[in-house]
Amino acid sequence: MKTLLEDATVVTMNARKEILYDAHVLIEDSRIASVGVVNSGEADQVIDCRGKIIIPGLVSAHSHLTGLLQRGLWDEDSFESWSQKSTATEKSFQASADDIYTLHSAACLEFIKHGVTTVLNMFTVPSDVPLKFIDASCRALQDSGIRGILALSVKDQSPDNQAIVLDPIHAESWVSQAKEAAAHVSDFGSRISFMLAPSAPQRCSDNLLMRCKDLAESLGVGIHTHLAETRFHAEVARNLYGEPMVKHLEKIGFLGPHLSVAHAIWLDEEEIDILSRHRVNVVHNPSSNMKLGSGVARIKKMLDRGINVGLGADSVNAGTVYSIFEQMKLAVLLPRAVWKPEHWISPDEAFQMGCAGGATAMLLGNEIGSIEAGKKADLVVLKPSTGLLPTNNLIAQLALSESGESVETVFVDGEPILLDGRVMKIDEDALLEALSSLGPRISTVVNTSSH
Amino acid sequence: MKTLLEDATVVTMNARKEILYDAHVLIEDSRIASVGVVNSGEADQVIDCRGKIIIPGLVSAHSHLTGLLQRGLWDEDSFESWSQKSTATEKSFQASADDIYTLHSAACLEFIKHGVTTVLNMFTVPSDVPLKFIDASCRALQDSGIRGILALSVKDQSPDNQAIVLDPIHAESWVSQAKEAAAHVSDFGSRISFMLAPSAPQRCSDNLLMRCKDLAESLGVGIHTHLAETRFHAEVARNLYGEPMVKHLEKIGFLGPHLSVAHAIWLDEEEIDILSRHRVNVVHNPSSNMKLGSGVARIKKMLDRGINVGLGADSVNAGTVYSIFEQMKLAVLLPRAVWKPEHWISPDEAFQMGCAGGATAMLLGNEIGSIEAGKKADLVVLKPSTGLLPTNNLIAQLALSESGESVETVFVDGEPILLDGRVMKIDEDALLEALSSLGPRISTVVNTSSH
Repeated sequence: MKTLLEDATVVTMNARKEILYDAHVLIEDSRIASVGVVNSGEADQVIDCRGKIIIPGLVSAHSHLTGLLQRGLWDEDSFESWSQKSTATEKSFQASADDIYTLHSAACLEFIKHGVTTVLNMFTVPSDVPLKFIDASCRALQDSGIRGILALSVKDQSPDNQAIVLDPIHAESWVSQAKEAAAHVSDFGSRISFMLAPSAPQRCSDNLLMRCKDLAESLGVGIHTHLAETRFHAEVARNLYGEPMVKHLEKIGFLGPHLSVAHAIWLDEEEIDILSRHRVNVVHNPSSNMKLGSGVARIKKMLDRGINVGLGADSVNAGTVYSIFEQMKLAVLLPRAVWKPEHWISPDEAFQMGCAGGATAMLLGNEIGSIEAGKKADLVVLKPSTGLLPTNNLIAQLALSESGESVETVFVDGEPILLDGRVMKIDEDALLEALSSLGPRISTVVNTSSH
Repeated sequence: MKTLLEDATVVTMNARKEILYDAHVLIEDSRIASVGVVNSGEADQVIDCRGKIIIPGLVSAHSHLTGLLQRGLWDEDSFESWSQKSTATEKSFQASADDIYTLHSAACLEFIKHGVTTVLNMFTVPSDVPLKFIDASCRALQDSGIRGILALSVKDQSPDNQAIVLDPIHAESWVSQAKEAAAHVSDFGSRISFMLAPSAPQRCSDNLLMRCKDLAESLGVGIHTHLAETRFHAEVARNLYGEPMVKHLEKIGFLGPHLSVAHAIWLDEEEIDILSRHRVNVVHNPSSNMKLGSGVARIKKMLDRGINVGLGADSVNAGTVYSIFEQMKLAVLLPRAVWKPEHWISPDEAFQMGCAGGATAMLLGNEIGSIEAGKKADLVVLKPSTGLLPTNNLIAQLALSESGESVETVFVDGEPILLDGRVMKIDEDALLEALSSLGPRISTVVNTSSH
């Protein structure tokens, strides 16, 4: 099957960051066959893209899809109190596998409508029967048509400033669950993949961290974790390890280019240097960081040190919207609220983080993140609204003025999963009704637990 | 003509901040006839709003619509350098009255699609033939169906840190232009009104400020101005007046409830107290303030002092999008990036600023800003997308998760100006083409002036 997208403005995000005008993109099956200004022969289907813009599918390299359950709750709180309340609420809610399917599908719907084609879903399995929940999540990702990474969240301890409390589920048990999960995920085909996600270093024994690393290596998958999201996390780490967290992680041999770390706010200069030296990837989540008052990650410094940075919408109960346009905008705006121009992020840098940066962070840099022959055909066709007109600086306008309203058509693996604004693989009305129907149950849980 | 909106969730923003469920809103001609849970008789037209949400039309109490011309330009700069470049570019572009019509219409289109029904357009007339530009702007507002305030920007001096340079156009000349402008604007009917807008106190002689005040009083209109947008502005004021700007303005008798001030960032405690004492209104513009690195306004402190605060999208070349949902979101997020929880703005406070706060700031508090019998029927009907579902906390979700995608129908003066997502009074395709066609001319100006 060959589909030709004709006469578009193509934001390639190739190594030369070329923007091509009146250009075509030829899709052959799941991949991009060619990109250029000369038509390359016959196609089964031709889509006229005059006046339209094609960008690489956006990437959310750190998200929790279950968070959609608690949207709008605990808005008054900063991270530590929010975290307690939202964890307790999620636990009390006792989601069924069907609920998870609904929530994760709805999150995918929101991502797709905002031009996101790849999502890392860091998933805390809500019981000790993990497989049916992993199955529900993978089906939700699969059925929506999005490219998904199920990153299984594991932890075997709960630290406070004084000591460690061991969790009932031990490292060994997590490792065998993770093996099972990985095998199950692999049944979903190449668009759904698996990663290991130690919840945060301070929530895992060194043993669990290193078992995760070994397993990830043997499975050929990446590792994702939270890192230094709040000042308290950084303090706890110093108390637990007697040194900054990243120094400890270096010492035990946990760091490397297979690793992506979300947030990375409370790091000192030396820790940033260490991350750079080990080519660790950082995932920046400005909406969540702002909303929870977590702090401001020093992204410009990281870029200056050559660290690869992607963007994450995190969870919408921590942040705002499952949108990477939103994160690009906030990545530009946030440093300007607090720092001098030398620490500012340009719209170009933010846009790069939203596609290629995220792709690299998820070890998918060779497959997605730019529009180049040979890569997966994960593309977004935009029909410009006022935000992109007149087009004085396309990338700046994409990063600062676009909220998703121009997103017209979205391809993943060469398949249109949003076409002319209509989502193709999800029954949207039924899904919104199922989502809406969770409301009374949530409010019962909230009212019960607050008494 | 009676239109009945049936069975909606109605966010009234009345004094008790009631949210009514399965409620109706009866519109009779340009006004709201009743709001409640019992149907109030016959209507010429019934709109089924089951599952939908009705909110008051949002208000942008500080905007420059001409800014759409330079969207995406000068992104690397902080305020002072940005201001020079964008002023120079606007001047070199030499907009025709037709260009102004296009730009202001396109800005209205963007506002309407984001649920904004009232806009203050602070307008620097681009030549010494002001009336034809004022006419073009008023026609654009009028033809779009939006409620508009043309706030004529005037100035008679350019200060730097050392001295004042007098402008060629003197106070007297501005005052007679303003009188002419006011008379012309009044021909456009009640939906378009006039305000006087001294550009900023430091850009106006005391004489011009007080002449504006007198004229505003005699016309029965409000005054709008920029205030203390950057640290530099505050410094200049201290140099010019030998005291903080607001103290000087109090001394000359310029302050009062007829006045709204945009930005209000670099004020000391005493200045905030003075604003409070004189019941001056503040208009907060977080996207512009962030984008230009202007600083963070102490909004919570102002609210605590009883100051009325509205929101403004400012200009999109200074900020992001002509959207008040965006400003609500940033009003919540921004203080959390820099301050402790006691200085945070809640989603409720942000939402209130986006409707009633802005209405009051523009002296329209009795007419718009809430859904109550007797008020103008300026309403937005939302068809909830995932951002508003499940509805755990409607106001928090409106303030943090809504980007305009749920905006389905917009009424101004009881007339639908957006209906089921289609803009009613603007030929959208033709407008986008006209807007787009400005691109090459802008790029010529930019390329010429940068050599």
